[in-house]
Amino acid sequence: MLFRSDNITGVCPEVMAAIQAANEGDAAAYGTDEYTARLGPAFSACFETEVIAHPVATGIAANALALATAMPPPAACLCHDHAHVFGTECGAPEFFAGGGKLIGLSGRHGKLWPEDVARVLAAQDPKRLQAPPIAVVSITQGAEAGTVYSLDHIAELSAICRRHGVVLHMDGARFSNAFAALGCTPAEISWRAGIDILSYGATKNGAMCADAVLIFRNSPHAASLDRWLGHRRLRAGQVFSKMRYISAQLLAMLEGELARRNALHANAMAQRLSAGLRKLPGVVLVEATDINEVFVRLPDAVRDSLARGGFPVTGRPADPGLVRFVTGWNSRATDVDAFLAAASGGKAPGVAAG
Amino acid sequence: MLFRSDNITGVCPEVMAAIQAANEGDAAAYGTDEYTARLGPAFSACFETEVIAHPVATGIAANALALATAMPPPAACLCHDHAHVFGTECGAPEFFAGGGKLIGLSGRHGKLWPEDVARVLAAQDPKRLQAPPIAVVSITQGAEAGTVYSLDHIAELSAICRRHGVVLHMDGARFSNAFAALGCTPAEISWRAGIDILSYGATKNGAMCADAVLIFRNSPHAASLDRWLGHRRLRAGQVFSKMRYISAQLLAMLEGELARRNALHANAMAQRLSAGLRKLPGVVLVEATDINEVFVRLPDAVRDSLARGGFPVTGRPADPGLVRFVTGWNSRATDVDAFLAAASGGKAPGVAAG
Amino acid sequence: MLFRSDNITGVCPEVMAAIQAANEGDAAAYGTDEYTARLGPAFSACFETEVIAHPVATGIAANALALATAMPPPAACLCHDHAHVFGTECGAPEFFAGGGKLIGLSGRHGKLWPEDVARVLAAQDPKRLQAPPIAVVSITQGAEAGTVYSLDHIAELSAICRRHGVVLHMDGARFSNAFAALGCTPAEISWRAGIDILSYGATKNGAMCADAVLIFRNSPHAASLDRWLGHRRLRAGQVFSKMRYISAQLLAMLEGELARRNALHANAMAQRLSAGLRKLPGVVLVEATDINEVFVRLPDAVRDSLARGGFPVTGRPADPGLVRFVTGWNSRATDVDAFLAAASGGKAPGVAAG
Amino acid sequence: MLFRSDNITGVCPEVMAAIQAANEGDAAAYGTDEYTARLGPAFSACFETEVIAHPVATGIAANALALATAMPPPAACLCHDHAHVFGTECGAPEFFAGGGKLIGLSGRHGKLWPEDVARVLAAQDPKRLQAPPIAVVSITQGAEAGTVYSLDHIAELSAICRRHGVVLHMDGARFSNAFAALGCTPAEISWRAGIDILSYGATKNGAMCADAVLIFRNSPHAASLDRWLGHRRLRAGQVFSKMRYISAQLLAMLEGELARRNALHANAMAQRLSAGLRKLPGVVLVEATDINEVFVRLPDAVRDSLARGGFPVTGRPADPGLVRFVTGWNSRATDVDAFLAAASGGKAPGVAAG
Repeated sequence: MLFRSDNITGVCPEVMAAIQAANEGDAAAYGTDEYTARLGPAFSACFETEVIAHPVATGIAANALALATAMPPPAACLCHDHAHVFGTECGAPEFFAGGGKLIGLSGRHGKLWPEDVARVLAAQDPKRLQAPPIAVVSITQGAEAGTVYSLDHIAELSAICRRHGVVLHMDGARFSNAFAALGCTPAEISWRAGIDILSYGATKNGAMCADAVLIFRNSPHAASLDRWLGHRRLRAGQVFSKMRYISAQLLAMLEGELARRNALHANAMAQRLSAGLRKLPGVVLVEATDINEVFVRLPDAVRDSLARGGFPVTGRPADPGLVRFVTGWNSRATDVDAFLAAASGGKAPGVAAG
Repeated sequence: MLFRSDNITGVCPEVMAAIQAANEGDAAAYGTDEYTARLGPAFSACFETEVIAHPVATGIAANALALATAMPPPAACLCHDHAHVFGTECGAPEFFAGGGKLIGLSGRHGKLWPEDVARVLAAQDPKRLQAPPIAVVSITQGAEAGTVYSLDHIAELSAICRRHGVVLHMDGARFSNAFAALGCTPAEISWRAGIDILSYGATKNGAMCADAVLIFRNSPHAASLDRWLGHRRLRAGQVFSKMRYISAQLLAMLEGELARRNALHANAMAQRLSAGLRKLPGVVLVEATDINEVFVRLPDAVRDSLARGGFPVTGRPADPGLVRFVTGWNSRATDVDAFLAAASGGKAPGVAAG
Repeated sequence: MLFRSDNITGVCPEVMAAIQAANEGDAAAYGTDEYTARLGPAFSACFETEVIAHPVATGIAANALALATAMPPPAACLCHDHAHVFGTECGAPEFFAGGGKLIGLSGRHGKLWPEDVARVLAAQDPKRLQAPPIAVVSITQGAEAGTVYSLDHIAELSAICRRHGVVLHMDGARFSNAFAALGCTPAEISWRAGIDILSYGATKNGAMCADAVLIFRNSPHAASLDRWLGHRRLRAGQVFSKMRYISAQLLAMLEGELARRNALHANAMAQRLSAGLRKLPGVVLVEATDINEVFVRLPDAVRDSLARGGFPVTGRPADPGLVRFVTGWNSRATDVDAFLAAASGGKAPGVAAG
Repeated sequence: MLFRSDNITGVCPEVMAAIQAANEGDAAAYGTDEYTARLGPAFSACFETEVIAHPVATGIAANALALATAMPPPAACLCHDHAHVFGTECGAPEFFAGGGKLIGLSGRHGKLWPEDVARVLAAQDPKRLQAPPIAVVSITQGAEAGTVYSLDHIAELSAICRRHGVVLHMDGARFSNAFAALGCTPAEISWRAGIDILSYGATKNGAMCADAVLIFRNSPHAASLDRWLGHRRLRAGQVFSKMRYISAQLLAMLEGELARRNALHANAMAQRLSAGLRKLPGVVLVEATDINEVFVRLPDAVRDSLARGGFPVTGRPADPGLVRFVTGWNSRATDVDAFLAAASGGKAPGVAAG
């Protein structure tokens, strides 16, 4: 199971401690508690601007709620055709949007490219009733292929969206891995680059079940995006009666830049793994290892070695020759080294030394 | 905030311990972990029959998913017009059911009555396209008014539903309080009385964020209810990547009948509170205190005394003269006594003694 | 079948002639034809203000589209609990609104009353996420019980709605019967009284399959109501490839006040029927015969006489003792008289004379 | 506007006569009339098997209702990525299906190919909750590119669908053009080849506003497809109060094989046009002219000649170099000849002769 996903990791100690600390006495229900009251200010401080925070418990809920509020019926969303929202959420955005349509575009390195987005938006004819109006563009950061969008890339996409009155959404399931990789601030990678609404992911990065939809108040779409989003969350079963436990997780991630620390560690472990794999004969690194994911093609010899070493490898459903490894906040360098040793057919040095 | 709701309570020690115990190492994601694998067997043992368990994180999600699978478009649901699903979930069942309709019936003691349900179902004309076909009847146990349905009452409703091919759903947000109050088994109060699908509530009873949709395999509707319910959960954002933490909570509630113990305590505290209030002049007990809720009308003198004692009282939104008190797994007898002392305008004997 | 409904009537000669006249040569598709281009100006002239006209083919489609655009998710609609939209459209508004909720209020004479609407809207608490925000109030004109709202009544409702930023919708399935009965103009009964959006009915009044959603440009909600409503219509299957035939029907109804003439005739026939029935012993007129509907309770003797005369009578599904008779644009005075003669147990004077 | 679409054509004389003939006296409403009662038998006779007919007024409504009943939430539909249902209906199927997902596959000649469908269906893993289960495959006959599926092709697709328990839907907007082109019976091209549910198109072929969802009783899916489809139609605003006028159109199309006659004529006109265009230098016929559509690439010289002759040409939105011409039941040979003459830069022989 090693490096299969960052979803397999447990809860990091700081978050678990926060959950336990929140378990003191009674607290007002349904998000009227003191922990939840602190969420807005904490996110605003983190992002250096006023942020409206809508906590939820899964990334799918965050994405589906964000897109649903951004694409009221009968509007559509433009996204990458490898995007999680497009193909890996069982139609959640379509469902939450009351039958909305996602339009998938291909694009190299798992990214949407400005020229493609500009072309599609420019070709929209508001009088042509047969095509749903595109009201939101969704990008994933870190992107679909373990890559990251540069700040300029996002800013270019945003400029196009703003020109067309279209919302720019970021699926930030691995948001912290991305800003950690770019060495920039959460602000720079989001609203400063023109993001209007963000699915902020904490679960993969060490939380238990805590993500959030963040709306930047300075977005020209903020008022319409935020209108009734609380009600939407409740009717989606995402307003928790004991909300304090969700909010405490998010507060812990923001405290002392825990999110960045966890992400930096995961990214570093991916670099170590990527560097090691690239040295093996026949291994092809398919995409740059920008964050905590490694996309490679492995020769049979390496696959066999890994299987013999107890690390059977499964390819991507749509492309079995392609393998994705994911590191997490809790990945250990010794495990990376043992894995690499197995891949090379030998003993792991670290293990041998142990 | 005392006695305002069972949603204000924290997590009971046994559940918190289970969450921490689950935080060991990595675990397969999205419900393929070992904790989740044990859910079906654990619920089946508890209910003495094969149960298909779909864990979710909120009671609204449980109800909305259960009703949505029971009322495929364009079907409708019949329920009490005070039911949580009818008026307190911001239209969640309607949304999850793709625009489904809930038809509210009034009924004394917060319950649906067999003669009313029989009349409505018999009046349905499948050729009359103007009315959506009623595919499910939903009852709440403990019921809307702090009352409980007797086993015979449920069995009568079920016989009517079965005659019409209609699913019988139970909203069991306070399911454990109900079977504890009746002194019966979970089996007797559910499938043995003819329930097809149950929203099993654990959150109010000491969990953090864990409820479940339970389908009884011996229901004639089991196959159709269960079909694609897993997919539905995922697209509703209710399949957690780190599902083990949700499942562990539910397992803990089933372990050693923790659910019954917590519920018995809450019920006893409500009895103590109810008995004490009834002794005060002018207090009218509106409904029997069957579970952990007390519905009363308080004279101004008692309200004033409570306010002076630090316990300001708020009435129900739809009927401000009516007050609901709710006890929980963590309510203390000394707090009940202090509350009663304040209500009577004096010092709390227990507190005085303390 | 006599007087069972105005839906049983055929197409009046003027509309049929218009349909045939439209059948000349080719015409641009999907509403880009010349007939449809004339709809906006024609309705604007009729209503003495700028009207945006969205033609559809059924009253249910008109209502469902109007309400859906007025109550974006997760908003709710307040209406009479006898309203067609509430109970006779198989959940169409709920479906079109993506899971919207209709909240039914009772009210005498089949009408919503200002004090009730004011109370419900004032009780709304935007912070209470459990209740969907009410975004639209829907009234029916002619009302549910064959009655009409006075202009003052509508204006009072509108003032309340405007105060709360809520849209006021009118289901005008029998709109022409209502303004004909009141002796006022279409403008006075709609936007001048504060209606924002109107389901304009032509089908019952002599058309084949033509109704329309009308938005009054001077409504404060016009822009948001009209946004994407064309796209909504198309995705609802209500943009006709050969739209000219729908538009031609509507144009014919507006031409030379055909709508008013047809409605006046139907109303007069209902008056004649109502007056005759009231003279019979034991007949109770339940509501005023304001438009083309007569709501009565008939003694068994009258029912028996009618059955013997070949006019078997069926009561309302929810109240079998209550009978509704409806006249139409094509009802004949001789038929009314024959019916009355049968009801009184004798020969029809007209028939006898014949 | 010549040859722009078959949607621009008027109503053929036989259908118009039928509409007028239906305009006699009163008729029961909402599809309980005698015309509608004859629909089932008439379609059953035409298709040589028991057919359940659900009349609607537009092709989009037919497709959206057919797909919605075939893909209950959260199921998905597999279709060609050029299909009308995929990209030209503003998300109607997604909306009617309560947030369903359409998965677009590419395929040569505008067709889905058995190997592709087999591969996608075989790759489905019912345990993988991230992907919605594919419950229906939709093909278009005549196909997306003016082509037709052979009977064997359909049978192969059906065999694959049956193996996976998946419904096979046919969008038959140009169904009559297809069976006319193949010289086969409606039965052979539909249920005999394994179609379960058919969107039967009459509007393009000479009707005013009449299509139908047809369910073949011998399909293994008939019962589930038909369940509540009447109610679905009503709540979609597609049950007409004066249904007789819709039904009469469909009956007229079936009477004396009018549908085949109209289609044969349209097809012949397309052949004439196609043959003429192919003779011009530089013209590339992109797809076989199987039915009443001609897909060509025209050199600038031909475009210029056409424009000068009064026939300006517009390309496809997604591929401006590609031009589609469509003939109809009312296309005249003299118009084809005049068009060809203009295309060749000369006078039209027919026109010259005139």
